[in-house]
Amino acid sequence: MKEDQLPSAGSISREPFPNSKKIYVDGEIHDIKVAMREIKLADTQMSLTEGDAAIQKNQSVVVYDTSGPYTDPSVDIDVKAGLPKIREQWILDRGDVEELDEISSDFGKERLHNSDLDHLRFEYIKKPLRALPGQNVSQMHYARKGIITPEMEYIAIRENQEMDKIREKGVEHAGENFGASTPKKITPEFVREEVARGRAIIPSNINHPEIEPMIIGRNFLVKINANIGNSAVTSSIEEEVEKAVWACRWGADTVMDLSTGKNIHETREWIIRNSPVPIGTVPIYQALEKVNGKAEDLTWELFRDTLIEQAEQGVDYFTIHAGVLLRYVPMTANRLTGIVSRGGAIMAKWCLAHHKESFLYTHFEDICEIMKAYDVSFSLGDGLRPGCLADANDEAQFAELDTLGELTKIAWKHDIQTIIEGPGHVPMHMIKENMDRQLEACGEAPFYTLGPLTTDIAPGYDHITSGIGAAMIGWYGTAMLCYVTPKEHLGLPNKEDVKEGVITYKIAAHAADLAKGHPGAYHRDNALSKARFEFRWQDQFNLSLDPDTAREYHDETLPAEGAKVAHFCSMCGPHFCSMKITQEVREYAKKNKLSEQDAVAEGMEEKAKEFSKEGEIYIKQ
Amino acid sequence: MKEDQLPSAGSISREPFPNSKKIYVDGEIHDIKVAMREIKLADTQMSLTEGDAAIQKNQSVVVYDTSGPYTDPSVDIDVKAGLPKIREQWILDRGDVEELDEISSDFGKERLHNSDLDHLRFEYIKKPLRALPGQNVSQMHYARKGIITPEMEYIAIRENQEMDKIREKGVEHAGENFGASTPKKITPEFVREEVARGRAIIPSNINHPEIEPMIIGRNFLVKINANIGNSAVTSSIEEEVEKAVWACRWGADTVMDLSTGKNIHETREWIIRNSPVPIGTVPIYQALEKVNGKAEDLTWELFRDTLIEQAEQGVDYFTIHAGVLLRYVPMTANRLTGIVSRGGAIMAKWCLAHHKESFLYTHFEDICEIMKAYDVSFSLGDGLRPGCLADANDEAQFAELDTLGELTKIAWKHDIQTIIEGPGHVPMHMIKENMDRQLEACGEAPFYTLGPLTTDIAPGYDHITSGIGAAMIGWYGTAMLCYVTPKEHLGLPNKEDVKEGVITYKIAAHAADLAKGHPGAYHRDNALSKARFEFRWQDQFNLSLDPDTAREYHDETLPAEGAKVAHFCSMCGPHFCSMKITQEVREYAKKNKLSEQDAVAEGMEEKAKEFSKEGEIYIKQ
Repeated sequence: MKEDQLPSAGSISREPFPNSKKIYVDGEIHDIKVAMREIKLADTQMSLTEGDAAIQKNQSVVVYDTSGPYTDPSVDIDVKAGLPKIREQWILDRGDVEELDEISSDFGKERLHNSDLDHLRFEYIKKPLRALPGQNVSQMHYARKGIITPEMEYIAIRENQEMDKIREKGVEHAGENFGASTPKKITPEFVREEVARGRAIIPSNINHPEIEPMIIGRNFLVKINANIGNSAVTSSIEEEVEKAVWACRWGADTVMDLSTGKNIHETREWIIRNSPVPIGTVPIYQALEKVNGKAEDLTWELFRDTLIEQAEQGVDYFTIHAGVLLRYVPMTANRLTGIVSRGGAIMAKWCLAHHKESFLYTHFEDICEIMKAYDVSFSLGDGLRPGCLADANDEAQFAELDTLGELTKIAWKHDIQTIIEGPGHVPMHMIKENMDRQLEACGEAPFYTLGPLTTDIAPGYDHITSGIGAAMIGWYGTAMLCYVTPKEHLGLPNKEDVKEGVITYKIAAHAADLAKGHPGAYHRDNALSKARFEFRWQDQFNLSLDPDTAREYHDETLPAEGAKVAHFCSMCGPHFCSMKITQEVREYAKKNKLSEQDAVAEGMEEKAKEFSKEGEIYIKQ
Repeated sequence: MKEDQLPSAGSISREPFPNSKKIYVDGEIHDIKVAMREIKLADTQMSLTEGDAAIQKNQSVVVYDTSGPYTDPSVDIDVKAGLPKIREQWILDRGDVEELDEISSDFGKERLHNSDLDHLRFEYIKKPLRALPGQNVSQMHYARKGIITPEMEYIAIRENQEMDKIREKGVEHAGENFGASTPKKITPEFVREEVARGRAIIPSNINHPEIEPMIIGRNFLVKINANIGNSAVTSSIEEEVEKAVWACRWGADTVMDLSTGKNIHETREWIIRNSPVPIGTVPIYQALEKVNGKAEDLTWELFRDTLIEQAEQGVDYFTIHAGVLLRYVPMTANRLTGIVSRGGAIMAKWCLAHHKESFLYTHFEDICEIMKAYDVSFSLGDGLRPGCLADANDEAQFAELDTLGELTKIAWKHDIQTIIEGPGHVPMHMIKENMDRQLEACGEAPFYTLGPLTTDIAPGYDHITSGIGAAMIGWYGTAMLCYVTPKEHLGLPNKEDVKEGVITYKIAAHAADLAKGHPGAYHRDNALSKARFEFRWQDQFNLSLDPDTAREYHDETLPAEGAKVAHFCSMCGPHFCSMKITQEVREYAKKNKLSEQDAVAEGMEEKAKEFSKEGEIYIKQ
């Protein structure tokens, strides 16, 4: 059976990025090694004129890297054993956890001891950790006690990847365009403050020691999430693990496993053990699966068991749709598309069937107790988000948002890290209101939005309809953007769809970082633009978000290796390349010991003639 | 030879859109037939409950259609003879033109009489028209004289395609989201006023009678342009004609032929004769070709001959880089990527070489004389637009913009229709300044922007980096968006790239129309969302911008015909479809003669039990 197919070495993408090297930066406070990617660049040929061979070195560019150890050929990875547990010692050193003999969840135990599942099961299941009685192991709790954890220092270094270089050299060319004349350093203490304040979270379950710590908050780089997961209709464990690794490779900062098909428990174990980024889930999906899809049969006890099951496997954040209140459900009656959140629809159905508030709401503090025993973060779900432009920013949506704000305060009372999910489908002129109201209602807890899609007429292209909204809301202050793939509304994304969605959202997130003036964000843009101007084609490819596609597109029309140093491309051909002509103009002025400015200012009638004669040196090639 | 390949019936896409019909609406003032596309929809099954068969008719949706007669199977088209000349009689009826014996341009004559080109030449070359001495045949001239031309009435009807229906029914569901509580009618008189005022243009050369008139202005639907054209490196006449037809099929409102390769003159004739949308060019490209790529050899006489050559073939608008002044060139010296506009680079090189202002600037009024004799519109080129984020909104760019504003006033003095080209590469937070300064500097002449790209790090995906900027600047007031394909910076786009670029820009333009509150823009979104909610899959596909791709993506995982009526898709599977659950909730309430509101308000403890028993009717399937 297809869904029984397990991952193997051959099914996981491990090829390093071209001309790139994984580097590790040491911590100053803690014994940590922060992973980054260094892209090496070719030299600039200072002059295009024959015989003039001056060169200029180009410093390599270091970029934020979510691909984990997979892209480091020196790390031995056995997908059947999982990734190295880099956080394990940090967690144990805090002395506030105990190791359990086995998973506490009844359902988890049943799966563990069911020999029919042996062939599916991850081989090296480790014993779960849990906070010692009375302890709270959340990063927010440590932050509020004034402790800078290794996770916090890791993040400070990781978010600063280019800062030292930029500070040394002073602000680079045209940096003023990016509102950051004096780059601010992101210090470990700043990370701690933001987490303590609730303005940022570090999703990092103590049972997911494999992750490279990352932060979600609007004073940091904008992050993106990729959804994966099987459905009843399609997909194997092998495919889902590769999708997770593949999503990280292209830039996913977190991955949500939204499986609703077969063997959800086992699939998740495989994904978590092999994921270098935090994993999120929507536990109600699995709970519903346990009651055979009958929403009204859901109970608090069953749900609670599911939370513990997943927390002990290592899920880093849970989407909890606790804001769907009974009295809000009728507000959706006149909507064009009703309730489109799966979790929201399930809870609405439960509320109506039982005519009472959902157990997610009534047991919210009980949920908090579980969250803090493992450091699972809340992602408070927007169960009543709009499913089309016509339903955007309506009463139901904002009523739920206010409730999420109240729940945030309760979570914070327990020192639980919390983010808030947002829409959805929103026309451009109504996007900002979402951000403003979220900040106001939820005390600046990080906002985590799906898109939003800015039109409904382009199924097959909803990565683009939503990429537009995502870039804008990221600029306005959203901390993490949940990707949308080209298959949205149509089917389950395959690997290529996952990549298309991730790259689109990296673009949106980076465009937002630039617009927000995040220090260092423009460095990669400038390096790539310089490479483009200097016809360093390989550098242009290697600095791009997707070197493979850039190279492939170029080679479609000019495949020869020689074309990679040509001073033109197939778009305009040799006579029409504006970049080449600009370089000729500069060359000419330089050869004649003139700045372009002088050349013009002094009046250069004669020089002009000379230029007419000599200036064409590159056109004859 | 590849470039000699001529178009044939088989090489042109003519398939009608699924479930769509070409309809024609009669004019009231003039004897005109305005083409639109009507999409027929299936009925809504009012109830999901078995045995309850009430249905609701869904009105067909009429959409703006740029595909020309190609998608009307009742029109006989011979690509070797060109499209029907729907405007011919309108033009002749005005009594202000003369028919010339042959093309006036020396170069044009030479090509026409060169028997070596016989095998390439379009077969039915018609005699060119020109304004009678002293006459001005521009739409702006007529508008200022108070004349409503057939072109103006055509546009008023075309832009209003859904208005009558909407006004009849009152504003539709949730229309208030779109800032258009009382839709404004676009009347022929309003079109005339906007053209007279210079706030909109109707590109419509008297030698391009094949076009279906369209308007570019910020009080109308946002338009998009697709660039095609060969380069020295690749592409045939056949491919370019099919690219033009293909671009219109997917939504291009105008097409620019940017050919810089072989047989530019002949290629253009084929394109214009077969294009139902206005054609733009950058005449300096062909002029440069005539002097073998040596910019400094360009002369006013040669350029003038090129303008006349192209005007008599029927080009509807010319990009003229007349704002690149000698004193602005040094302002680009410290840029990261210098001058990236091909036309701008050519003119900068000419200015420096000759140390004087370009002939485009010094002969601007002579150019105006040519434009008004054929009604060619100006697209004043931004030769100094930024080529990377670091160079955005700089001194050079805005200095040129001010000059374009001065030139606009001169063009308007001659009643020449004028639009202004804009950047380029601009981070999100700097986009609005471009729009504001353009409106101010250019007296509200329509803005026509390339993108802008909002980051430089994603070659291979620049349709997306720029689609973000395009949607935003469209919302801010840009009248036409010049598309960018995935091949931007890398190579010449092929047919698939053209489609990807066009669809991306249709998304951007439509998102902008929604945000601007264009009356009627939300109609298609709502119809598609309703189809989605009601699981009318075929309607969802057919209403989308690209029905083929939507259908293909859906069928990848659920290919069976039965899945087209299934109440779920492969994304979530049957148990997890929120739309289905919402419908169940509504169904339940209805069956029990309750509105959802009542169901909750009255307290429905018992009903709740009943629901638990009966509510699952659709989950068992």
